[in-house]
Amino acid sequence: MRKFAIVGIGLIGGSMAIALKGFKDFKIVGADISAESVEYANAHGVGDEATTDICAAIKDADVVMLGMDPQGIVDFLHEHKDDFKPGCLVTDVCGVKEAIMNAAECLPEGVDFIGCHPMAGTEFSGVQNAFGDMFKASHLLITPREGNTEEHLTLMEELGEYIGCRDVVRTDPREHDRLLAYTSQMMHIIALSICDDDELFICKGYEGTSFRGATRVAALDVPLWTQLFSLNLPALTEFLDNLIENLTSYREELGKGDPVTLASKIAKSADRKRAVDLPGPDLLH
Amino acid sequence: MRKFAIVGIGLIGGSMAIALKGFKDFKIVGADISAESVEYANAHGVGDEATTDICAAIKDADVVMLGMDPQGIVDFLHEHKDDFKPGCLVTDVCGVKEAIMNAAECLPEGVDFIGCHPMAGTEFSGVQNAFGDMFKASHLLITPREGNTEEHLTLMEELGEYIGCRDVVRTDPREHDRLLAYTSQMMHIIALSICDDDELFICKGYEGTSFRGATRVAALDVPLWTQLFSLNLPALTEFLDNLIENLTSYREELGKGDPVTLASKIAKSADRKRAVDLPGPDLLH
Repeated sequence: MRKFAIVGIGLIGGSMAIALKGFKDFKIVGADISAESVEYANAHGVGDEATTDICAAIKDADVVMLGMDPQGIVDFLHEHKDDFKPGCLVTDVCGVKEAIMNAAECLPEGVDFIGCHPMAGTEFSGVQNAFGDMFKASHLLITPREGNTEEHLTLMEELGEYIGCRDVVRTDPREHDRLLAYTSQMMHIIALSICDDDELFICKGYEGTSFRGATRVAALDVPLWTQLFSLNLPALTEFLDNLIENLTSYREELGKGDPVTLASKIAKSADRKRAVDLPGPDLLH
Repeated sequence: MRKFAIVGIGLIGGSMAIALKGFKDFKIVGADISAESVEYANAHGVGDEATTDICAAIKDADVVMLGMDPQGIVDFLHEHKDDFKPGCLVTDVCGVKEAIMNAAECLPEGVDFIGCHPMAGTEFSGVQNAFGDMFKASHLLITPREGNTEEHLTLMEELGEYIGCRDVVRTDPREHDRLLAYTSQMMHIIALSICDDDELFICKGYEGTSFRGATRVAALDVPLWTQLFSLNLPALTEFLDNLIENLTSYREELGKGDPVTLASKIAKSADRKRAVDLPGPDLLH
């Protein structure tokens, strides 16, 4: 039996530990510095077992998945670079990839590394909110690097399929970070900004699915998202500038009060949305 | 048996016709000028029966619910004001209320009117996309007016409960329109503006639930939303100005590149979201 260690069993790592149970011939071992999280994991079947002994968890592991925040992963790689088993695969789950891939350069030859970002999550944090269906129908983004073994690349594909992902998309770290500034980080800035309106509390009771959908992620993990934003500032500010420009353009069109030109502007944007044909989440509750 | 006529069996009217089947002693009769919609409704059990004869549908109805777009409702009220049965209740389902309540002034004495706005919907349109669970856990906003009978006010409460609404909230038309500019119309302008980014199509495959949640409603019904925006311009532009200001404030903070002040700004917005405690839609697909 091979060993699959997940270091950092919070919301994502914990959900991975649940989703990966029974994956091939792997024993899924969760590791966390928090005794409380480990106790919860052992009591609730998050993975096959969990431990606070992180060194023991990784030293004979065939796969190590790092589930901490970006800085935590970078620090861990430097600190434990000589503790991994030769020939093992190290991967991660975090939402920026350039900083992680750069840090992984410190790993000794013979320790393989493939960056990984499951495009899933909720606005909650901690293993208590983990659930195995989290990755269903989501994209698994992976950032391979030169020298990855075919066996490990195949393993990541199989992992994505096993946990129910829609697909496994190979990308490079810079492209990943640039696109994620738009599809993820900016959505969080929007949600936060909507909630900064003075009338937020007055409006309770008047909200529907569009408001709940657009603001859901505002209740985010502050230290984590401060890191994610900070590690991706150039791309994020560029997309934010575009958004402010596009919103201002709508503001100006509305100011004119001409329903004909307004309709034509709306139709153009709506057609773009239809053309990109993104599956919507189930928003009917 | 009493008669409950729904005029305009599109997405919302059609969903009402399904959800209201079996409500008290009412026979649910759908009416629409589109023979295709009526045929679909009769073939799929949308209400108890459906007809293209709108005059016949309303003339002996005890309740008439108007399911057209705002201008359609205003025009219908003026055109058919003398065709309603004395003592009946007329209501509607549309997303602006001041224009509708003003138009309803034309109704003769003895025809009761209560404005109604179920805070539910999808980005699709037409009876083909109607479903009876649409209103589950949503707010039903009603705008009573002077002279409403207790019987009819109670009926609206019972209707909300029967179709599964979270609650029935009484409000006045001006307050309704102002708050909806924030909670609904602005969410649609945001979704449209996000989709106006040049990189929309490049980003496909990199999106998660936050992106799908915030952009879902961009695939909207263009004539309907042009009306909704146009009928609510002062409130909508005011909230849009606030949003642009709040986004610009985040843009400036990000530009400084100081993680400490950034974290404190994020924490403030996130705390507001947690404090308002809005139930999130199920975004896990």
